[in-house]
Amino acid sequence: MKLDTTFGSDNHSGVHPKVLEAIAEANAGPAVAYGLDPFTEAAIARFREHFGGNADVYMAFNGTGANVISIATLARPHQAVICSKHAHINADECGAPESVTGCKLLAVHTTDGKLTCDDVARHLRGRLDQHRVQPAVVSITQASELGTVYDPGEVKALAAFCHKNHLYLHMDGARLCNAAASLGQGLGEISGGLGVDILSFGGTKNGLLLGEAVVCFRPELSRDTIFIRKQKMQLASKMRFLAAQFSAFFAGDLWLENARHANRMARRLAEKVGTIPQVKIIQPVQANAVFASLPRPALDKLLEKYFFYTWDEDRNEVRWMCSWNTTEKQVDDFASAIAASCR
Amino acid sequence: MKLDTTFGSDNHSGVHPKVLEAIAEANAGPAVAYGLDPFTEAAIARFREHFGGNADVYMAFNGTGANVISIATLARPHQAVICSKHAHINADECGAPESVTGCKLLAVHTTDGKLTCDDVARHLRGRLDQHRVQPAVVSITQASELGTVYDPGEVKALAAFCHKNHLYLHMDGARLCNAAASLGQGLGEISGGLGVDILSFGGTKNGLLLGEAVVCFRPELSRDTIFIRKQKMQLASKMRFLAAQFSAFFAGDLWLENARHANRMARRLAEKVGTIPQVKIIQPVQANAVFASLPRPALDKLLEKYFFYTWDEDRNEVRWMCSWNTTEKQVDDFASAIAASCR
Amino acid sequence: MKLDTTFGSDNHSGVHPKVLEAIAEANAGPAVAYGLDPFTEAAIARFREHFGGNADVYMAFNGTGANVISIATLARPHQAVICSKHAHINADECGAPESVTGCKLLAVHTTDGKLTCDDVARHLRGRLDQHRVQPAVVSITQASELGTVYDPGEVKALAAFCHKNHLYLHMDGARLCNAAASLGQGLGEISGGLGVDILSFGGTKNGLLLGEAVVCFRPELSRDTIFIRKQKMQLASKMRFLAAQFSAFFAGDLWLENARHANRMARRLAEKVGTIPQVKIIQPVQANAVFASLPRPALDKLLEKYFFYTWDEDRNEVRWMCSWNTTEKQVDDFASAIAASCR
Amino acid sequence: MKLDTTFGSDNHSGVHPKVLEAIAEANAGPAVAYGLDPFTEAAIARFREHFGGNADVYMAFNGTGANVISIATLARPHQAVICSKHAHINADECGAPESVTGCKLLAVHTTDGKLTCDDVARHLRGRLDQHRVQPAVVSITQASELGTVYDPGEVKALAAFCHKNHLYLHMDGARLCNAAASLGQGLGEISGGLGVDILSFGGTKNGLLLGEAVVCFRPELSRDTIFIRKQKMQLASKMRFLAAQFSAFFAGDLWLENARHANRMARRLAEKVGTIPQVKIIQPVQANAVFASLPRPALDKLLEKYFFYTWDEDRNEVRWMCSWNTTEKQVDDFASAIAASCR
Repeated sequence: MKLDTTFGSDNHSGVHPKVLEAIAEANAGPAVAYGLDPFTEAAIARFREHFGGNADVYMAFNGTGANVISIATLARPHQAVICSKHAHINADECGAPESVTGCKLLAVHTTDGKLTCDDVARHLRGRLDQHRVQPAVVSITQASELGTVYDPGEVKALAAFCHKNHLYLHMDGARLCNAAASLGQGLGEISGGLGVDILSFGGTKNGLLLGEAVVCFRPELSRDTIFIRKQKMQLASKMRFLAAQFSAFFAGDLWLENARHANRMARRLAEKVGTIPQVKIIQPVQANAVFASLPRPALDKLLEKYFFYTWDEDRNEVRWMCSWNTTEKQVDDFASAIAASCR
Repeated sequence: MKLDTTFGSDNHSGVHPKVLEAIAEANAGPAVAYGLDPFTEAAIARFREHFGGNADVYMAFNGTGANVISIATLARPHQAVICSKHAHINADECGAPESVTGCKLLAVHTTDGKLTCDDVARHLRGRLDQHRVQPAVVSITQASELGTVYDPGEVKALAAFCHKNHLYLHMDGARLCNAAASLGQGLGEISGGLGVDILSFGGTKNGLLLGEAVVCFRPELSRDTIFIRKQKMQLASKMRFLAAQFSAFFAGDLWLENARHANRMARRLAEKVGTIPQVKIIQPVQANAVFASLPRPALDKLLEKYFFYTWDEDRNEVRWMCSWNTTEKQVDDFASAIAASCR
Repeated sequence: MKLDTTFGSDNHSGVHPKVLEAIAEANAGPAVAYGLDPFTEAAIARFREHFGGNADVYMAFNGTGANVISIATLARPHQAVICSKHAHINADECGAPESVTGCKLLAVHTTDGKLTCDDVARHLRGRLDQHRVQPAVVSITQASELGTVYDPGEVKALAAFCHKNHLYLHMDGARLCNAAASLGQGLGEISGGLGVDILSFGGTKNGLLLGEAVVCFRPELSRDTIFIRKQKMQLASKMRFLAAQFSAFFAGDLWLENARHANRMARRLAEKVGTIPQVKIIQPVQANAVFASLPRPALDKLLEKYFFYTWDEDRNEVRWMCSWNTTEKQVDDFASAIAASCR
Repeated sequence: MKLDTTFGSDNHSGVHPKVLEAIAEANAGPAVAYGLDPFTEAAIARFREHFGGNADVYMAFNGTGANVISIATLARPHQAVICSKHAHINADECGAPESVTGCKLLAVHTTDGKLTCDDVARHLRGRLDQHRVQPAVVSITQASELGTVYDPGEVKALAAFCHKNHLYLHMDGARLCNAAASLGQGLGEISGGLGVDILSFGGTKNGLLLGEAVVCFRPELSRDTIFIRKQKMQLASKMRFLAAQFSAFFAGDLWLENARHANRMARRLAEKVGTIPQVKIIQPVQANAVFASLPRPALDKLLEKYFFYTWDEDRNEVRWMCSWNTTEKQVDDFASAIAASCR
């Protein structure tokens, strides 16, 4: 298997050189631990340039951690979170949200990974019935786990619906950068600006060594988040090294450059393989993922040489992820290999 | 305040250059995420050189995370953990062990941070009484939070006592390197070798950017730990960057060099200030911490210039931590400043 | 509304006179609390006549409590429970299983409330994938929440499938008596006898004042259940009054008489309304519930006079429950009222 | 052993005849389940006569359940509860509060079972330190687990201190009736009237078959308690039988008669044994418990004939509990037996 090229995950890519440089630069002399250092202060200022001066920011280790902090900030253990069946919190976090926050997830079937107001409404019927867990939070993923992107209007409608129904809106933005690049809008514009209450903002998949952040747009909700982060085991002692990465990420819009590139590579791949009759693109390619189905024998042949994930065994559906450092040549070679496997 | 020198915490020091180098080296090409990469494989081989070929190793983000994974591996939510009142799990983790694992901590008063068999025995009286939470784990910290080090004989006796009483022994080894350097023995020799069942092994305080590990010496106990690590939000996607750090840490016994140095600086400090009549060293200086009491006015004067933590406000007790990169000059200057503040 | 007749729930009926008598008889002199009394001993002996001499029995307050004890006995917080979407644990316990045990529920769509081996198999694909919560328990309800009854062969097949796949089988037997009466078999015969590992056995819905029990058929699994019961707040201090009820319940097969009667009333109701063209019986009437759909206007008219639950608002589906003390006259009057409402 | 007399626990006594009668009376016809019945309505009206018209009342099964509901109402999982080391929540609930609510208990050493403002103050020093769990609730027990009773002034001072420091005050009133009888004041007067925010009110130990209640004096805090009760498995389906007991309990001040009698029996016992030189009464006898120490051989002799609990093995300290139906003769006989055992 050619592991020097992988369409398995944007987590398979390494660290952007500028990010690595920033880490090295932060390594001069001592710094007070746990976030009371100038690097953290500077990074939070950067965050606020994007997410607004009121944004309350808590850097964390990983996406599951950021999601759990977000939920624990907004909901109490007798409450519930409405999300898509495909949501990372529901499908890929080994039960962390339920087990660590005590909240039940109410997972909704979706075809494109995107929740609608109707989906949410259906779960509100048990309101005031003491036997039913009480929804307090709606969680959406932007870009979604299926590579689709919510229109700003869709998020705005969901936020309005949530707030009217006394629900908070959480956005899992592990790939918010890809969504912003796709929409041609700003990070804050497509999250807090549309009514999102709390955001898990992802850096790792877009070129950081490791680093995510919880961004709360309504500071009155996050008064205890500093304790929640610590209790949920997401407080880095040498915080400066998370902070420095984010500062580099925001400087010169590196986040955007990386995300744009990854998106472009996915579109390139989709365009190239879209002409192969046996390959069916099954989701709109709006971020950095291509979801496709192809004949089993073709898949098997391809998997001998390339690493990627089968999304649905029964339907021969696969996910091909592009990344900030996927090259055009890698895409073209992969597309050729796909074509060859279909012959 | 001279923040260019800090005796506040070994977390205030940065990353050892060799560790940073190893990170950069690992950043070549893609690698499968979540630990299925050659860097992780290599690091685990290194771990096993120190902890034995059966050691089951799970790298994690931070010490609280490693402790929670360890407890969740060994105990079920209706069980309890016996520990010192000063234990990090009891005093400094914002309630993570109880809240995330559901286990109650039974904290024991200790004067030197070290548990004894008698301390444990006292908490076993409620065995079989359905109203009492049932102890399943004993947790000790090596080196302890008070800078003291368990003798190998003490750990061995505790392990034997635990096993005889159907208890597991967990060691919080956030500073195991310092203990090993202090005792002149190997890392595995003073943990698994003495009967410890599971270990939280610390790297961050001894020169890593970030990185701890759960090391289980009885693999039959850790069959589910891979899921527990994920659920407790301690699974790094780009695992290679944790792994590379640990490989550098073990290579050429960098861990030992760092720990020895930190310990030596603490002893140097203790020796220098031990001659000041107003300064009382209140714990044996066996690792990289000096616990001392000094007159309030001296303390206040000193705190204007140096950053460190007051351990007990009422008794004017303070903690001075040394680190892998504390210099002799910094120690000597600090000792002089202490002497001056007492005049 | 005629609240003197209710088809709302078998919980709306009171206590069987013989049960009340038994409570009064147990009220003579003192008795040691928390189960160390002769009444408890006697009741457990009775349980063992039905469930086998090895059955490990823990009386509890309510069904949610018994279910939570069962799950906490069999699963650890990083594990999951596969169940029907309609399962009481999933739909009607306000999130207790997740919140109190930490386990995620994997709910499966079913049309008749009954799980199949295929349903379970579909959720086993994430086995060994560290991102997926790991199924450890399958939970089925007998009789189901939709008034259907598993054939013994179905349970046996599920048990075999579970054990082959290293899963435990839990049975929520809040209405096990109704199932046994329906099948004409014994309580143990249709639970432990078919391979069920642990059972929540219900008394309240079948004539007790209050009282359920956890019955574990493999005592090696329930060594800690006595502590789990206490921690999950299900340990009665004056246990003798739970025990005396169960003794009366088993004496002279009162449980069977009550359950048979309730089932007969449901069949009678189904037969009578089955001839009304506008009424559609939508589930097989195998226990004491009738699920039916009827025109909205008819429903509305009926709800003015009778108390019962609408099961699915959109489809005008309702649930009519019969109980140990529902009378033939009540059934006939209700059937007539239904017929009248449809005119 | 003469189990027809027990000084082991007030839980060893049965049900007051009037309570049993009330249960039988409530058993006429059907009643809607889960608290939507006239018996519950009537009982709550009775509660409000004692606790004020704003009191929000949630009947529950047992004391541990009521305590857990109270804590879950007032605190979130990253917060903590300050209590006495002897508190039932800390010592006798098998870790339920921590495991079920996620909150850490901060247990304080007390000699008489009563917390002081200073005890609480000592635990507030970690406020705003993200590494420390954040106290949100103070929990006191009235009458205490050591048979002592807080003066109204003491409770008032604690409440004021709590509120000034943004803490809620919970009272575990498993024996509030005994405290009220001892003080000659009303139930609400010595709880909500003094600033208590939430109360676990006990019935079981004072003559009920089973029944406790959570009484919240600030309804803005208990908006979700109805869901918390259900999720914490404390919602009775046939609620009327809890309600009828409480109505009988309040009618004609049966609660007071029972509690007064139990207290009187304890005082009688203390007076009688107080003259025996070898017997030392070690706590003020202010409710229905006598704590005493006596020589080991005397203890051993006595335990051959009577059932009671040794409180502290090392110090030969025992607890003798009196109850609503302890007779003067039983007390006198027991006192004689104690005297005889000391000879």
